[in-house]
Formats: sequence, structure tokens, C-alpha cells
Amino acid sequence: MKEILSRVDHTLLGVTATAPDYLKLCDEGLQYQVASVCVPPSRVALCANHTAGKLAICTVVGFPNGYADTEAKAHEAAAAIRAGATEIDMVIDIGMAKEHNYAAILADIKKVRAACGTHILKVIIETALLTEEEKIALCGTVGESGADYIKTSTGFALTGATFEDVALLRKHSPAHVKVKAAGGIATLEDAKKFIELGADRLGTSRVVKLVQGMEGTGY
Amino acid sequence: MKEILSRVDHTLLGVTATAPDYLKLCDEGLQYQVASVCVPPSRVALCANHTAGKLAICTVVGFPNGYADTEAKAHEAAAAIRAGATEIDMVIDIGMAKEHNYAAILADIKKVRAACGTHILKVIIETALLTEEEKIALCGTVGESGADYIKTSTGFALTGATFEDVALLRKHSPAHVKVKAAGGIATLEDAKKFIELGADRLGTSRVVKLVQGMEGTGY
Repeated sequence: MKEILSRVDHTLLGVTATAPDYLKLCDEGLQYQVASVCVPPSRVALCANHTAGKLAICTVVGFPNGYADTEAKAHEAAAAIRAGATEIDMVIDIGMAKEHNYAAILADIKKVRAACGTHILKVIIETALLTEEEKIALCGTVGESGADYIKTSTGFALTGATFEDVALLRKHSPAHVKVKAAGGIATLEDAKKFIELGADRLGTSRVVKLVQGMEGTGY
Repeated sequence: MKEILSRVDHTLLGVTATAPDYLKLCDEGLQYQVASVCVPPSRVALCANHTAGKLAICTVVGFPNGYADTEAKAHEAAAAIRAGATEIDMVIDIGMAKEHNYAAILADIKKVRAACGTHILKVIIETALLTEEEKIALCGTVGESGADYIKTSTGFALTGATFEDVALLRKHSPAHVKVKAAGGIATLEDAKKFIELGADRLGTSRVVKLVQGMEGTGY
């Protein structure tokens, strides 16, 4: 269980969440020793202040649609890091992927990579909207970009991570690129299976709740 | 019909659209003399070059979730204008609205307003996620902010503009603030009714298609 929790980006990205929800997320993250909490850019400072360096703060860039301008994405990443974020999950421009314009996607990621300095950068490709050929090509693009992770999903598309996609991304990504599965991780068995298939991180709000439920502390 | 078309922001904001789709949107916009085309930030330069000053180019900021950092929103708006955008549709931080933190929302809008210079700024409040009290309060906030329009919806929530909401926003907004109805405008009768209820602009992809259908040029 500890092993699973240590790989969880404990995530709250719903648009109607309020300050008390984010503080609760941080407290849960500290208690269960998750990898990070993942929160919107406008809540990074709140969460960074509340956790005071004891927990990694992940946030999202160009999220969830990915079609922000490259320069704006890089600026957003830099601003988030200044506000206290330690990990950045960016979304690729999916329309460019549908054009098979991988050069544009590589340039987009590289600019954000530069803005992130040594902080962890994860690249969301939104597998639900891609063909297998596009997913495989993007493993190469993300591999070339200097990003740390390739991530399946925003959680805002019709479907999230699947076992097949996590196995596919692991198989076709260079060894230095880790895989993050996100979106719709429903059970601890699912979480375990995603890790076995090669996911190094899990983006989920549910795993902590499931552990709380087993402990009888859920609500 | 011309009157309706002159109020349409002819919109393409799906994440899988490609360059030919945006060029077609621009050509339709020019042909039908719409108010503007509304496209993602990463496609502004393409559309601005293609239309060469003959059509207003609208784009979106902090879209669709609204919880980007204020500074990032302002920077994104400025970058879009440099790329050729002439109108900016920004999304408020909906979580802040749920906290009734209207001071934070006012500050957020004002920063984007400053970044827009004299260009048109529309503020999306995402009515589907708000109570009536929150909608009315936001009419005041947007009125104070110096924005030109209050806009119902991103098109990415469960529902878009309703007749009731457009009438409500018109009733509670100061006279200098115009209303834009967006999301789910399904028929020309709907479009007409939204205008009668006080909408000055309509964000829609369907109105041009409906007009094409009537002309027998649709496909």
C-alpha cells in the first residue's frame, strides 16, 4: 500500500473546488506520503505555503486543451515554479498531433522544458484522442524533448488511462522517460496493475480515498 | 439572417481540429460576414495571416477551466494580441466564484483587461456551474472590471447558454456591458431568441452551417 501511495499524484483539478478542498488535499497528501499533490496553477501558492516544503507540488500547464501558445505555456510553467510548484504536467497541442506535426510538438515541449529548469516535467498526450500510430510517434517526440514523463490523460477527455495504453507507452518510450497513468483509476487493484505495466506515477484522487475507506477514516 | 450572422463569433475550439479546418472556418467567416472567428491561441497567427485584417480574430485565455494564474492569463492575452488576435474571451476562476471571492475575480479580470489594451475583452463566467446569486454578483464584478462583454459559457461544461441565463445577465449587467451567449445554440430560431433577450454576440459553430444548409451549400 505504501508503495502505491508513494507513486500517487494526489489530484484535485475540478473547476469548482475551493480553498478548504485544496488544504484538505494537502493534509491528506502529507498524511499518506504521496508523491505530490496536483492542483491548478491558481492554487499553487496556497498549497506550497500550507505544506512548507514537506510535499511536492505538481501543477498543470496549457491544461486541459493543450492549444495554448507555446510561449504562453512556457511562461505559465515559469510562473508556477516561482509560485512554488515543483512538478509541471503540460498538455501537448493535440491538433498538431492530428496533423502529425511532431516537429511543432517537440518545439512546444522543449520551450516548456527550458522554463522548468531542473524541475520534473510530465507531458500529457491525451491517449483517448489519438491513434496507435500517433501514440507511438509521440513516445519518440517526448523521448527527444528532455521531458521526464509521458502521461496518458488529462482526466477531461471521455476516457482516461487504459492498461493497453500504459503498456504501449512503456514499450515505445526510451528508458529515461517514465510513464504516468491518469484518469479513471478506480480501484487499488487497477493502481497495482498500472504500476506492474510500467507506470511510475498515478494521477488520481481516488487512491487516497480508497485507502481511507479501508482504514475506516473515509467520509 | 444578415443581422444574425453579423453577431456570430464563428467558433472552432475542439482540441482535434487541424490547420485545414481553421482555414475553412476563416473562409466561411469572410463569406458570411460574421463578427469574428474564434480559434485557439495556437491558431491565431495562422488565421490572422489567412484573413489579413479582413476579419476579427477572437481567441480564448485561461480556457476552458479558468484556474490559470492571473499573471499567466494576462501574458497569454498579450501574446495572443501580438500574434494577431483582436478579441479575447477569458474564463474566470470558477473556484473563486464558489468561494464568493469576487475581489480576486475582479483583480484577475482587471489584469487581463490591462493586457488587452483597447481590444475587446469578453469574460466567461460558466453559468452551468453557478447559482443565481453567483451569476448576479458576477454581473457586478464584470461591470466593474472594464470588460466589454459577459459571456455565458465555454462550451465545455455540461450545458451552454440558456434563455433564462441570457435574460438574467442582461438584466443585472450595467448597460455598458454587452452579453455573449455561447454553447449549444442549435437553431436559427434559438439564435434569434438569444438576440431578442439581449445577446449582442453568439458564440457558435452551428449558425453558419444552418445558413449553408438553407442555401444548399452545406455538407
